[in-house]
Amino acid sequence: MTTPAPRAADTPPPLLLFDVFGTVVDWHGSVVREMAEIAPSVDGDAFALAWRAGYQPAMAAVRDGRRPWVTLDTLHREILEALLPRFGLSQLDAAQRRHLNQVWHRLRPWPDTVAGLTRLKQACTIAPLSNGNIALLTNMAKRAGLPWDCVLSAEVFRAYKPDPAVYRGAAALFDRSPEQVMLVAAHHDDLAAARACGLRTAYIERPLEFGAAHVKDVSPQPANDLHATSLTDLADQLGA
Amino acid sequence: MTTPAPRAADTPPPLLLFDVFGTVVDWHGSVVREMAEIAPSVDGDAFALAWRAGYQPAMAAVRDGRRPWVTLDTLHREILEALLPRFGLSQLDAAQRRHLNQVWHRLRPWPDTVAGLTRLKQACTIAPLSNGNIALLTNMAKRAGLPWDCVLSAEVFRAYKPDPAVYRGAAALFDRSPEQVMLVAAHHDDLAAARACGLRTAYIERPLEFGAAHVKDVSPQPANDLHATSLTDLADQLGA
Repeated sequence: MTTPAPRAADTPPPLLLFDVFGTVVDWHGSVVREMAEIAPSVDGDAFALAWRAGYQPAMAAVRDGRRPWVTLDTLHREILEALLPRFGLSQLDAAQRRHLNQVWHRLRPWPDTVAGLTRLKQACTIAPLSNGNIALLTNMAKRAGLPWDCVLSAEVFRAYKPDPAVYRGAAALFDRSPEQVMLVAAHHDDLAAARACGLRTAYIERPLEFGAAHVKDVSPQPANDLHATSLTDLADQLGA
Repeated sequence: MTTPAPRAADTPPPLLLFDVFGTVVDWHGSVVREMAEIAPSVDGDAFALAWRAGYQPAMAAVRDGRRPWVTLDTLHREILEALLPRFGLSQLDAAQRRHLNQVWHRLRPWPDTVAGLTRLKQACTIAPLSNGNIALLTNMAKRAGLPWDCVLSAEVFRAYKPDPAVYRGAAALFDRSPEQVMLVAAHHDDLAAARACGLRTAYIERPLEFGAAHVKDVSPQPANDLHATSLTDLADQLGA
């Protein structure tokens, strides 16, 4: 899973799976940008961070079995409904709320994303492995031009990362052993969970994931197989 | 779901789902072609037809609950194992059998397929809705250049067409009512099952699906919304 060597006819291309929110697309900047249009008086930075802060607790309820499987669209909407009064947006009607909730389908790629994925696709099979639902990821890919070979989602496994069922399930779908699969993510906890399942890992630096006012520590952790500053840097490192 | 009209910002593109074996790719011609290389003494036409003849009975065992879910790769391999002695191919070793079974990952598109899908993708969200497993469909798309927006498979629903769970499940994933979804197929039984679930249907003429020696009746059936001679003809009819 380092530089791809010439492959025998029957050797499948390496399988690269990508975390999406923060790794492939800029959720913070995209939400801030749309809020500036929809509700210029609202603090878009605080709104984006508050929405995202509801993400892990909402998924934990599904992971822990406290509620049955629901999609991330549903969880995003529940978090949004609780946020609107806090930010003075209770006047939004049903259509506006639905449109706003779908901002997660409209997230914009980082500047290196499309070029990096396009290069990586030449040498590898590339797919998201995201907690976003299939329609969300498909709509996002279509809009942003993300050239996935297929769309893998927590929804396929009805389990949210970091549930091992997601990482192991993705490898099994492609009849690969876990060490034949690499997860690419900007989050050390996602990578650690994948590594615990036997996958290889590549960390991507996204210092501005939470916005310019909240620069993230992107220090390397030695447990990762690769550490890259961008998806084009990852393509360089993989010889793609 | 006729000619796409200009859409409001929030109106999603029409969702077109495609049967794959026979509709998008030429399974008969592809199997015959590979058999001519692997085992020139074997009657490739008879071999391809015999392999395909095992397909519906094998899936029926899963549909009827006589066995738990297994992928189409597994079913194809079981059928193949039974065929090899009949065709004097018992000498194939494990690697050769595995390679031959994966011919279904290497099926070739019909001449109009890539051009038709590429045009349809401009106006619609396009995805396979096939009994092939996710890896099979992904490997096929990568090799053949099928520009799917995402890969939907019976494997997502752990049910084989014509189980209604597949058609209804695909519409539900995209938060569409069934009549907002169209199935495109070269098989009237697949289309009839989709129609029974409320989907719209488009029939594609593939008279050579079973080879030039077994030309298929491709007469229109009035219950289908559209009848097209090819995927480029379908693109014409949809104004894409």
